[in-house]
Amino acid sequence: MKTIGHRIWAIAEGYIPSYSHGPEPQFTSHETACVLNANENDAHLSLTIYYSDRQPVGPYRIIVPGRRTKHIRFNDLQDPEPIPRDTDYACVIESDVPVVVQHTRLDSRQAENALISTMAFAIE
Amino acid sequence: MKTIGHRIWAIAEGYIPSYSHGPEPQFTSHETACVLNANENDAHLSLTIYYSDRQPVGPYRIIVPGRRTKHIRFNDLQDPEPIPRDTDYACVIESDVPVVVQHTRLDSRQAENALISTMAFAIE
Amino acid sequence: MKTIGHRIWAIAEGYIPSYSHGPEPQFTSHETACVLNANENDAHLSLTIYYSDRQPVGPYRIIVPGRRTKHIRFNDLQDPEPIPRDTDYACVIESDVPVVVQHTRLDSRQAENALISTMAFAIE
Amino acid sequence: MKTIGHRIWAIAEGYIPSYSHGPEPQFTSHETACVLNANENDAHLSLTIYYSDRQPVGPYRIIVPGRRTKHIRFNDLQDPEPIPRDTDYACVIESDVPVVVQHTRLDSRQAENALISTMAFAIE
Repeated sequence: MKTIGHRIWAIAEGYIPSYSHGPEPQFTSHETACVLNANENDAHLSLTIYYSDRQPVGPYRIIVPGRRTKHIRFNDLQDPEPIPRDTDYACVIESDVPVVVQHTRLDSRQAENALISTMAFAIE
Repeated sequence: MKTIGHRIWAIAEGYIPSYSHGPEPQFTSHETACVLNANENDAHLSLTIYYSDRQPVGPYRIIVPGRRTKHIRFNDLQDPEPIPRDTDYACVIESDVPVVVQHTRLDSRQAENALISTMAFAIE
Repeated sequence: MKTIGHRIWAIAEGYIPSYSHGPEPQFTSHETACVLNANENDAHLSLTIYYSDRQPVGPYRIIVPGRRTKHIRFNDLQDPEPIPRDTDYACVIESDVPVVVQHTRLDSRQAENALISTMAFAIE
Repeated sequence: MKTIGHRIWAIAEGYIPSYSHGPEPQFTSHETACVLNANENDAHLSLTIYYSDRQPVGPYRIIVPGRRTKHIRFNDLQDPEPIPRDTDYACVIESDVPVVVQHTRLDSRQAENALISTMAFAIE
């Protein structure tokens, strides 16, 4: 298959709720960046997190192997620092090979979970 | 990082429910335009609100500082006038520097909240 | 403002649930095509509905006045014929002036409503 | 109508929950790729499923007749093999004629269902 996707993606709506209902880890309130790397070569990702009231933080480095998908939980990012809960953020994802990125949140703060998903915005 | 995003964005589906369940302000029924400004310079936004039965209202002026995100609650817009609840509207966002815009609604009219989110539509 | 939007849009996921919970008409299970016409001139829309097992039906003709938004409920379309409930469909929207289209469903078959929304797909 | 759509589409966020509440098959937790083929000619689709920890599987072959829509349930794919539940995946859809693809999930693991939908990402 030919190379598919883009090298820079943006997610403007980031927010990890601070509490949850239901069995973990499936029903833990979380946000994910689902990345598809349909190429033969590994994708080396670099994530930058933007906040409303302080300097951006990053890069967070993640590898998505060739011909694989990885559903990255923002909750699990640790290096250089965790993303605080109940805090507005946004994210830019840069990759050395073209990938496709979709953004999803599961919000289980109430008894019944709510879901959102949208393709991230392809910059180039 | 290079300049990313677009200068004109549109949201066609606007609707702020008039009532809510759950603790405020997190569970107040609301709509947001989440804006990422990944550039060095401040973004000066101008929002115009379109209705089904009267002239558009605006501009609403908002600044998103350089290298910051701002999650704008349509509920909070006051100048030139608040957006009425339970009313269909749409929105065009113009910026003097490129930004990325994502649209989200939390609807808590019932006991369990519902969520939607989608990238806004990039015009140019 | 300059002319914004596109003249042909597609929605691939159409489905109107056949039953509902909660007060009408807000909580009636429904689908909408939210159209923003930011131009000075009226937009004359022509909708064609595609099914899985029979010929397309249309055109459904709708006018969105200049500098107005209209949130079209698929439930309310009558001419040339209503869209059956619990039936897969898709939709192509053609306009004589550029518009922006967003697709939303409220599903209230259960006690708590669920929502989806996404920008329609801009063809040209 | 002129030919509309694209020949390659990607969905990065795939996940079929393993359990459900409510009457089948409407409330079975499921994912769909809703395909609109507005052309005169049949569309011959080839789906490839990507995983996080093993080689891609496919092609899954599906025909969408001309001037029809088909809402494909990933749950129902059998050949060459079913998609396991509770497993991250992604999908690339290739078609010999242009089509439009929208991705939807109904998650009924809890008493009240949650929904997501987004346009798939058009590659070319």
